[in-house]
Amino acid sequence: MDVTQSPRRDEGTGYEIRPPQYKSELVQVGRSKPMGELLRRYWHPIGLASDANGTPRKVRALGEDLILFRDGAGRAGLVHARCCHRGTTLYYGKVEARGIRCCYHGWLFDTQGHCLEQPCEPQGGLFREKVRQPWYPVEERYGLIFAYMGPPERKPVLPRYHCLEVMDDGEFVETDDSSLGGGGPQIIPCNWLQHYENVVDPFHVSVLHASFSGAQFSMAMAAMPEVTFERSPRGVTVRATRKVDGKTFHRVTEAVIPTLRVVPNPRVAQFTRVESIGWVLPIDDTSFRIYVAGRSKHPGDLGRMRSKFEGKFWWDMTEEEHQRHPGDYEAQVGQGPITIHSEEHFAQSDRGVLMIRRMLQDQINIIEAGRDPIGVTFDPNVGPVVFEAGNYIREHERE
Amino acid sequence: MDVTQSPRRDEGTGYEIRPPQYKSELVQVGRSKPMGELLRRYWHPIGLASDANGTPRKVRALGEDLILFRDGAGRAGLVHARCCHRGTTLYYGKVEARGIRCCYHGWLFDTQGHCLEQPCEPQGGLFREKVRQPWYPVEERYGLIFAYMGPPERKPVLPRYHCLEVMDDGEFVETDDSSLGGGGPQIIPCNWLQHYENVVDPFHVSVLHASFSGAQFSMAMAAMPEVTFERSPRGVTVRATRKVDGKTFHRVTEAVIPTLRVVPNPRVAQFTRVESIGWVLPIDDTSFRIYVAGRSKHPGDLGRMRSKFEGKFWWDMTEEEHQRHPGDYEAQVGQGPITIHSEEHFAQSDRGVLMIRRMLQDQINIIEAGRDPIGVTFDPNVGPVVFEAGNYIREHERE
Amino acid sequence: MDVTQSPRRDEGTGYEIRPPQYKSELVQVGRSKPMGELLRRYWHPIGLASDANGTPRKVRALGEDLILFRDGAGRAGLVHARCCHRGTTLYYGKVEARGIRCCYHGWLFDTQGHCLEQPCEPQGGLFREKVRQPWYPVEERYGLIFAYMGPPERKPVLPRYHCLEVMDDGEFVETDDSSLGGGGPQIIPCNWLQHYENVVDPFHVSVLHASFSGAQFSMAMAAMPEVTFERSPRGVTVRATRKVDGKTFHRVTEAVIPTLRVVPNPRVAQFTRVESIGWVLPIDDTSFRIYVAGRSKHPGDLGRMRSKFEGKFWWDMTEEEHQRHPGDYEAQVGQGPITIHSEEHFAQSDRGVLMIRRMLQDQINIIEAGRDPIGVTFDPNVGPVVFEAGNYIREHERE
Repeated sequence: MDVTQSPRRDEGTGYEIRPPQYKSELVQVGRSKPMGELLRRYWHPIGLASDANGTPRKVRALGEDLILFRDGAGRAGLVHARCCHRGTTLYYGKVEARGIRCCYHGWLFDTQGHCLEQPCEPQGGLFREKVRQPWYPVEERYGLIFAYMGPPERKPVLPRYHCLEVMDDGEFVETDDSSLGGGGPQIIPCNWLQHYENVVDPFHVSVLHASFSGAQFSMAMAAMPEVTFERSPRGVTVRATRKVDGKTFHRVTEAVIPTLRVVPNPRVAQFTRVESIGWVLPIDDTSFRIYVAGRSKHPGDLGRMRSKFEGKFWWDMTEEEHQRHPGDYEAQVGQGPITIHSEEHFAQSDRGVLMIRRMLQDQINIIEAGRDPIGVTFDPNVGPVVFEAGNYIREHERE
Repeated sequence: MDVTQSPRRDEGTGYEIRPPQYKSELVQVGRSKPMGELLRRYWHPIGLASDANGTPRKVRALGEDLILFRDGAGRAGLVHARCCHRGTTLYYGKVEARGIRCCYHGWLFDTQGHCLEQPCEPQGGLFREKVRQPWYPVEERYGLIFAYMGPPERKPVLPRYHCLEVMDDGEFVETDDSSLGGGGPQIIPCNWLQHYENVVDPFHVSVLHASFSGAQFSMAMAAMPEVTFERSPRGVTVRATRKVDGKTFHRVTEAVIPTLRVVPNPRVAQFTRVESIGWVLPIDDTSFRIYVAGRSKHPGDLGRMRSKFEGKFWWDMTEEEHQRHPGDYEAQVGQGPITIHSEEHFAQSDRGVLMIRRMLQDQINIIEAGRDPIGVTFDPNVGPVVFEAGNYIREHERE
Repeated sequence: MDVTQSPRRDEGTGYEIRPPQYKSELVQVGRSKPMGELLRRYWHPIGLASDANGTPRKVRALGEDLILFRDGAGRAGLVHARCCHRGTTLYYGKVEARGIRCCYHGWLFDTQGHCLEQPCEPQGGLFREKVRQPWYPVEERYGLIFAYMGPPERKPVLPRYHCLEVMDDGEFVETDDSSLGGGGPQIIPCNWLQHYENVVDPFHVSVLHASFSGAQFSMAMAAMPEVTFERSPRGVTVRATRKVDGKTFHRVTEAVIPTLRVVPNPRVAQFTRVESIGWVLPIDDTSFRIYVAGRSKHPGDLGRMRSKFEGKFWWDMTEEEHQRHPGDYEAQVGQGPITIHSEEHFAQSDRGVLMIRRMLQDQINIIEAGRDPIGVTFDPNVGPVVFEAGNYIREHERE
């Protein structure tokens, strides 16, 4: 048989795939990388307030290894893990009244990295003011410790949020560090942007969290919504509308640059403004975690938002059950440690993802041009940020 | 003492070893690598027929991550693991009547990668014909699923083999995916060529499988053979002759390009044509597995070919027992993840290894010149391949 | 608020850290690296005498994989792990009267790498003298096997040490391979230099081993000493003086190039010359181990030098106990697999570390200039090395 007479040649086979590439400028979080520098213009939560105490605690954020502690005066300190003297980790240090002391030669540093003692040096260290343990400024709010890891002259004020400042009756702010909303364990082994994009992807809810795995959230969420995406003064706002029992269910979600998830309760316990904020903390290029603060009426309310499948938490499910009931964790970690952008094919329902990526790229361009990125303010008297996000219902809508 | 009077200088010490190198063109199996392209001109088994079913199954072959499934019409499908939409692995997909559906946004693909549904898109996806999930053609034969991962215009016909087509009385074809002949576990952590070369190395049988570890095969195999090596129209043919009890034992083994082991039963249960074929599947550059199909009279006959040492299977042996009774696994994995070709010293008994390497290199040159490699045919009516391989005895040989 | 009016800009934050770098010339131990070549001008212990026996034993030293064995004539052999024929590891080889035999094709090598048999070759291998298994010369002394892995024409004599040659009443030489002095397990996962520098750092004793973790050694060691550092004809000598109960306690420690720890008993059981020597063996760039030989009166005396914390050995302590009671292991492994030299800040108490680094660098320059480094001799009749090291007391010192 002549090869030219063979049946029609196969089209679209894997043989044609181009070499894989990802957009490094959007995903890499290290110092001096474009996204790394953008992220360093904002405050990030790096622990619960209670994580800072008399025992040095390892923290990894934006690819940097740090140690968190709290001195005798109650001040939280966040320092470079390597002692500036000879590089031993301060994880083995001792927390004292005035700071943290390295185990190796006993240098003592305060929460701002000043070297207070050098016990092996003549007269306790005549030149100890010449050294400084690398440190980062921290502030505590909403039960979390926030750190600013960027250029000191660009340090903005730590924002306040209306949804966490103004309580309804009987409410208080509760905090969670278990990566609520990530759909899996506390440390999630893929790039942070794979999760963050998901915030502006309301369509997947009707598939991944409904028809596919069984309705994980409320029935109200199962219907395919009508959606608009819009740039806000702080990120991307997603407005999803579903008709349910003759009523109109409006759900507004916001992605606030650089990493905030402003997502109303997907279980739609009540129709009201958003209850909680999640901060996606990039640990490094291939892992992240989520801190959440929210209004709560009973301790543990936040944790009760966590999804279960057939009565089981994620960590109790078998491999086979994960395969049958995938959630956000499977969908996002299933994209690989860093997804391959060169192999993506966007459709209309991906408009939100495209919008947030463009907006992030815009901010990168802005800081490279020497300006400050969106949402940053240096005015300590600025009021709290008010979100549009929430679940809302309209009984008798005309149109 | 003057250093010039010191005793004779040590010769041949390890200090003189040159920097290690391997022949990347012969071992690397990825797309666009010389050997990767050669391997992609042939069909390879990537699973048992039963592996394709209603649960998505991970397959890794030639360095590519794929998903195997079987749709409701009974068609096996082999697709790129990453969904062409947003990159989520189809391992978490759902197998349906018409194909496999991604968990994230519900895109549905048939076994040829056509996108049949995009539930999050307006009107189910007006442009869904513009995307295609990368896929590979598969065919089923001998209880195995074969895939063709090369350039579509070069897809040959899937060969038939006389030894698996023409049965003796009471025989049927049995299949095994446990890497029979590899001497160890199912996934063997070294480059495939280290194993494949072993097929044309009949001398090691008398050492590794006889004098060294105790006769692992039959006594007939323990004697050092006389051997000739010859290029065949499909690879290298090895003819080993041993005198046993006044009879002449002829054993013919074939290495068929690119990865076929055509090796008669080393236990020499009977003197006859070869009973089975093994396909060495390179998983990636540093691991491989073996699929075997053979004529059998009783279910499980194939599995009973597996070697035991002191009554134990490989996986039941202690480290110390492996050290005392090494087999093919230890000898080949003991060469390292990829052996160091720059440190080899060939001798006369290595003629077969040199011959198969040259022949593989010739085929690489042939495809780079735009022609088709050895053993490839595009004629669907071509007859089955007849091997010379087998164990044969001659009682009264004159010479 | 105008950003120019903001509070004083934070100084010394982690944002200013330069990209990390280490001094590769001082830490890398591989062939052709500056330090690798310096280390290869000396003998190194690679096992206990009893480690060489009829079972091939894996040895990794200076980044090279080797096999240690002892032939039937009692000769220890140290050969490259990869058989020079086809690269199979000789770990699966068989030790015989005349040498070690490879499992794959049965080539037999003597302790100097000569190929004695090639059973698969015609007439047992007519050309077997053309190949040589890479090997290293070894010598046995003090219960240890020493290897020379450098250029053959530069092989020095294996040194003798007075402290191990001249016994006091009832003493004998005892040997230990458990990395005594390393403060942790047998294999320590960081660069060897991080440990070796510690030998010339007497100040850390008063912190790490006293005030910080609780007095790990004797009380006599807890006081901060007065210290002088001096280059000796073989390395760096550290003389530490402490006033204890009106007496003067002199402690002399030596770092002998390239890797010798000549450290008097830190428990100061008696005031006398140094009892033992430790050799730091770089396994590769990121791990090392320590062999010790010392004078002993009772079997096990050496092992009883090992530190305990609250009655527990290092390997029995919890993570939390390690954090509360760090020792040499935590301080040195806590510097990372290879410490970051670009982030160090030296003070006066680090003079010894600077001195030994400079001295090592000098030796590298010397061998690059074609000369022999410090401490090397080619005279087989040279006397044993006499150390100054020891713990000494002076009751009535005038000054």
